Amino acid sequence: MTTTPIVIRKTAELQARAEAVRCAGRRIALVPTMGALHEAHLSLVDEARRHADEVWVSIFVNPTQFNDPADFDKYPQTFDADLALCAGRGVDVIFAPTVDQLYPDGAQTWVDVSELALPLCGASRPGHFKGVTTVVTKLFLAARPHVAVFGQKDFQQLAVIRRMTRDLGFGIEIVGAPTLREADGLAMSSRNVHLGPVAREEALALSRALAAADTAYAAGERSQAVLLDRVHAELCEARQGKIDYAELRDPETLEQAGPVLEGDVLLALAVFFRPDGDGQGSEVRLIDNIVLRDRSTHRNEEQA
Amino acid sequence: MTTTPIVIRKTAELQARAEAVRCAGRRIALVPTMGALHEAHLSLVDEARRHADEVWVSIFVNPTQFNDPADFDKYPQTFDADLALCAGRGVDVIFAPTVDQLYPDGAQTWVDVSELALPLCGASRPGHFKGVTTVVTKLFLAARPHVAVFGQKDFQQLAVIRRMTRDLGFGIEIVGAPTLREADGLAMSSRNVHLGPVAREEALALSRALAAADTAYAAGERSQAVLLDRVHAELCEARQGKIDYAELRDPETLEQAGPVLEGDVLLALAVFFRPDGDGQGSEVRLIDNIVLRDRSTHRNEEQA
Repeated sequence: MTTTPIVIRKTAELQARAEAVRCAGRRIALVPTMGALHEAHLSLVDEARRHADEVWVSIFVNPTQFNDPADFDKYPQTFDADLALCAGRGVDVIFAPTVDQLYPDGAQTWVDVSELALPLCGASRPGHFKGVTTVVTKLFLAARPHVAVFGQKDFQQLAVIRRMTRDLGFGIEIVGAPTLREADGLAMSSRNVHLGPVAREEALALSRALAAADTAYAAGERSQAVLLDRVHAELCEARQGKIDYAELRDPETLEQAGPVLEGDVLLALAVFFRPDGDGQGSEVRLIDNIVLRDRSTHRNEEQA
Repeated sequence: MTTTPIVIRKTAELQARAEAVRCAGRRIALVPTMGALHEAHLSLVDEARRHADEVWVSIFVNPTQFNDPADFDKYPQTFDADLALCAGRGVDVIFAPTVDQLYPDGAQTWVDVSELALPLCGASRPGHFKGVTTVVTKLFLAARPHVAVFGQKDFQQLAVIRRMTRDLGFGIEIVGAPTLREADGLAMSSRNVHLGPVAREEALALSRALAAADTAYAAGERSQAVLLDRVHAELCEARQGKIDYAELRDPETLEQAGPVLEGDVLLALAVFFRPDGDGQGSEVRLIDNIVLRDRSTHRNEEQA
């Protein structure tokens, strides 16, 4: 299914197209991205296709969500390759605005989700989610989709966007798509290309830590302290890694879990790794997560 | 032109209607109000009619824009009278949501305009404009209008909403409608009903102060100090009034004017008055404004 997507650069043009498509009775699914597309993004495109008649991908490296300017500067920009990948997946429209389209001169309006954006990545990347919710609001207003698809790898981002969408009354269905992994377990991320060979190997500690916790939780371990010990034991194998956070929280409210765990529990990890080779450049921060399922509860639910 | 407006209470229902109306090629103009409608609101309805095929009025006393809970509690609620007034003016749809429609349980998403919301009413009513921009975002998303009409009496509100609409890319035209006045000059406001007889008389000081400044500016007075002296001389006639602010600012950026004025200059006033009769209840805060026009500049522009 190879088509050539239509590339639109102006917000007003996208809005006019959205109105025409909606009024023709066709459903639009939006996949917001920052480009540097890889297989995980394409799985979001495939998921989007299941919910709509047209799949629109936005490609915009949003300056306001980078709390670290160096991180913004080195974010990979690969538009031609992105376009080819989208064509191969049958994407209908690519929205690739310039910065001034989404941030006109003197822009000073911000969309902010308060509580959900505070912990985890919100704590270690001040202002990050404010940038995300602001740009996603603008993308939603530009594309007017029926559905928008986000990856579960950015678990907190998904939770924050769900809340924002409901609170503001966008009338858009938010779909979370499962994390795609490399064969060895590393969660796919545009940032993985910055890992040197040692860091690439050590980065497997994240998925190993998630698996260890999952196994223990499934076996009935309910002590937060014991579970976090297992997690830290795995993460410590990454000798050049530096833990940003490793936390157990409520998957809905993102509040901290109690000492004795119950029900479904989010395990969220963020680890810094040294950059490639000569040690130049900033560290590479990887995140990963799993929702530990209380299988007894779920079994009961299925029986009910 | 008397029709019975359709009254809609659910956001999703309004959104569905907006989609149908838009797809039928008809233009929607929204007039957001907090009810307690009077002739000035109806002039906004008439203005809206000039820009669209359908006029929709929202009636919602927004709790988050009242920094003073007592002010919220005593805000007049007169739905039946409002409905009759709208019917008499040919309003097509009234959107009168319950609070939970616009603020679902656990709502924690805010829309904020930074610089423009800081001075004037933003300084004396902390959080006020954050409540306004948040609810107007929700109303815009619910009604999906082509045009929205606001009164120029709330000059700063109009400036903040214009900026928000442009920054977020709503694709909605914001129209400002002139301030309507009673025969004696008092700007119409839902709050006027709370003025006792003495305060009602003294409140004329606001429009007299604006007129005095306008006359002086037209006569060539360009000293900020001299103009503010004139303004204060008028306001001091209101012996029971208490000035909140009386300021000269740039009408676009709302930045403070320099000592020597030039071009068009906003004069914005806010004065507290004692409440009616027994002195119970909170004070009544009235605002008013004028843009002092540099007529020489305008004459030049007309010649150009």
